[in-house]
Amino acid sequence: MFKAEIKSETLKGLVNIISTLIDEVKFTITPEGMTLKAVDPAHVAMIELKIGAKAFESYSASVKEIGLDLDKVKAVLKLAGQGDVVSMEQDENKGRFVFRIGNLTRSMNLVDTSSMNDPKVPQLTLSAGAVMAVDQLLKGIRAAESISDHISLKADPEFFELSCKGDTDDASLKLLKGSDLEVLDVQSEVHSLFPLDYFSNILKAIPAGTKVRVELDNDYPVKLVFGLANGEANVIYFLAPRIESD
Amino acid sequence: MFKAEIKSETLKGLVNIISTLIDEVKFTITPEGMTLKAVDPAHVAMIELKIGAKAFESYSASVKEIGLDLDKVKAVLKLAGQGDVVSMEQDENKGRFVFRIGNLTRSMNLVDTSSMNDPKVPQLTLSAGAVMAVDQLLKGIRAAESISDHISLKADPEFFELSCKGDTDDASLKLLKGSDLEVLDVQSEVHSLFPLDYFSNILKAIPAGTKVRVELDNDYPVKLVFGLANGEANVIYFLAPRIESD
Amino acid sequence: MFKAEIKSETLKGLVNIISTLIDEVKFTITPEGMTLKAVDPAHVAMIELKIGAKAFESYSASVKEIGLDLDKVKAVLKLAGQGDVVSMEQDENKGRFVFRIGNLTRSMNLVDTSSMNDPKVPQLTLSAGAVMAVDQLLKGIRAAESISDHISLKADPEFFELSCKGDTDDASLKLLKGSDLEVLDVQSEVHSLFPLDYFSNILKAIPAGTKVRVELDNDYPVKLVFGLANGEANVIYFLAPRIESD
Repeated sequence: MFKAEIKSETLKGLVNIISTLIDEVKFTITPEGMTLKAVDPAHVAMIELKIGAKAFESYSASVKEIGLDLDKVKAVLKLAGQGDVVSMEQDENKGRFVFRIGNLTRSMNLVDTSSMNDPKVPQLTLSAGAVMAVDQLLKGIRAAESISDHISLKADPEFFELSCKGDTDDASLKLLKGSDLEVLDVQSEVHSLFPLDYFSNILKAIPAGTKVRVELDNDYPVKLVFGLANGEANVIYFLAPRIESD
Repeated sequence: MFKAEIKSETLKGLVNIISTLIDEVKFTITPEGMTLKAVDPAHVAMIELKIGAKAFESYSASVKEIGLDLDKVKAVLKLAGQGDVVSMEQDENKGRFVFRIGNLTRSMNLVDTSSMNDPKVPQLTLSAGAVMAVDQLLKGIRAAESISDHISLKADPEFFELSCKGDTDDASLKLLKGSDLEVLDVQSEVHSLFPLDYFSNILKAIPAGTKVRVELDNDYPVKLVFGLANGEANVIYFLAPRIESD
Repeated sequence: MFKAEIKSETLKGLVNIISTLIDEVKFTITPEGMTLKAVDPAHVAMIELKIGAKAFESYSASVKEIGLDLDKVKAVLKLAGQGDVVSMEQDENKGRFVFRIGNLTRSMNLVDTSSMNDPKVPQLTLSAGAVMAVDQLLKGIRAAESISDHISLKADPEFFELSCKGDTDDASLKLLKGSDLEVLDVQSEVHSLFPLDYFSNILKAIPAGTKVRVELDNDYPVKLVFGLANGEANVIYFLAPRIESD
C-alpha cells in the first residue's frame, strides 16, 4: 500500500535532482519515508536521497519498491499550478501508479524494478569540508563554461577555490573564510579535478539559496550534502574525479 | 468602400482564432460588420466568425469581399504597441489594403478571392451541451498531450469528461456540474473521439477566462461556441470526430 | 600600464555596439581614455568610438594598444550581476588581460594587434540632419523586415521618412518635424538606400531612449552620431549606401 500527498513544488524539486542522473528509478518505500540510491549510466556520479514522511502533506505506506519513469512524472507536474497538492497512490488491482491534481487523474504503469540493483554508497572520509550557498558554486561553474570541460576544486585552510585553465584563458572564484563560506574545515590544502558537465547539472538543479556542504580530498570523489523540502529530504551526491594531466 | 479602426489587441484575438485553420482568408463585408466562413485544407475543422461593427472603434463599409493573408496581418500587429489602434482601409485606386498605426503605414496587395468558396456550415442539433472556462478544457488537453493523439469527450448528466488512453498511461479530467461547469444540459451520456492537435490549436487561441459552450453527441462533430471582443464578435467552430477503434 | 573599473552595464553597452561589426578589436589607450576605429569585414560599415576616462569608475593608463576578443568579454559580462563593477587590468608580466568581478578572476591572452590597421574615418559633409529617439528608427526597421532587404531613408524639409517597397507590400514610417523629431535641418529633399541587416543590427544595439543624430545625403553613406555611458562615450557610425535599381 502506498498513498501520499505532496506539494507540487516539493515533488518538482526532488524530481529535478534525481533526473540529473537517470530517468527510470526505484524508490524504496517504508512507513517512515522513501529512499532512492542511483548511479548514472556512465558510473561517474551517484545520488542517495532520503525523503522523510514529514516532507509530505500526508503519507501512509507499507514496505515496498516502486519503479517510476521520471519523464512522465515531470509531465504530470507541468499540469500542477502554483500551490497545488499532488496526490499519489498505487492502484493495487491494476498495478498502476495514479496521480491526482484537483479534478485531474493521471495513471501510468509502474516500471519493472527487478533488474535495478541499489548501488553501493561509498563510505569515504574526506579531509576537507566547506559550507556555502549553491549560488557561489554556480558562479564558479558559469565562469568556467566557455574555457574548459573540467573544473578544479581546491580547499585551503583560508579559502575554497573553483578554477579552470584553458589554452589562452583562466578563470578562478575564490571563496573566503568568514565572508563567502559559512564553514571551512581544512587541515591542509587538497584539490581534485571534476567533469564540468556533471557538476554543472547537479548544481543547476539545486534551488537557489540552498546551503551545500562540499567535502573534498586529493584525487577523491567530491561529496555534496544538502537538504530539500525544508530539510525533510536529504541528498548526498558523489562525483568521481578526473586525473589531472600535468 | 471599407474603412475601420480597431484596437490592436482585439484584431490580434480575431486573427489568432482564424489562423489556427488557414492563412489566406476571405472576409465578407457589409455595413453591419464582417463575416468569415473557413475550412482547413484537410476539411477536418470549420469556423464561422461574425464580427459586429461595434467590435470596431469606428466602422464604415459597403458590401464587398476582401481577401487577406493573415501572416502579413500578424506581422503588422507585431508593430503595434499596447493600446494602439489600428486603422484599416481599402485603397480603391491601387486595389490595396492599407494598415496605419500611428505614424506607420503598411500596405499590401489583396488576395484573390475568386476561387474561395464559402464552406457550408452544417446545421446540427447535438443532444448534449455544457459551458465551461476554456482553461478547464486546456488542462484536459495538456494532460493528454504526452499520451495519445486523440482525446475523448464525454457528456454525462452529472459531469463532462476529457480523457485519453495510451498503451501504458491514462489521463482523465472530470468537470463536475455545479463546481466546474456553468451549464450542463445532458439527457443521456454521449461521447466522441477527436484529433488532439486540432482541438489543442483552437483552445490555445482562445483568450484565458473565455466561457466556451461545447455541444456534443455520439460520433458527431463537436461544436464550440464562444464570444470575442467583449461579445461583439461570435465564433462557431466545428471539429470532425475520429472513429473509435475498439 | 592599464587599470580601470567600469560598471558592468556601461561596458555591456559599449561592447554591444562594437560587436555589431567585429569580434577582435584594437583599443588605443591614452591617459584621457580609450578610442576604437573599426570596419566590418565586408567594408560596408565603420565605427569610431571614443570613451572618456569619466565613463569609468576609476581609470589609470599610459599610452598603449590592447587587442581583445569581444566574444570573451561578453562571456565575462554574463557573470556580472546588476550593479556589479568590473575591474580590468593588463598583467604586464604574463601579457594577459585580467577581469575581476567581486571574488571572480578571469584572465585571457591579448589578441595580436600588429596586423590591425586603423581604418580612415571619412570626412563627409552631409546636407541633411535630424535628431530622433532610436525607438522611432527601430519601428521603421521592424516594419520593413518582412518586406525587403533594403530600407530607404529620406530627409525632407518637413519630415524624415523610413520606407521600403516589396513586390506586393510597402511600408513607410513618417517622422514629423515638431512631434517625432527633435531637430530637422534639411534644405532640400535627399534620400539614399541602405542594407536593412546592417542598419537593424546597429539600431538594436543602441539602448532604448537614446537620441540619435542621423546625417543623410543623396547616394552617400548615412552617418549616425550618439552618446553612451551618460554622454561620456561617443559613437560615430557610417553605413555605405546601396545603388537603387529603378
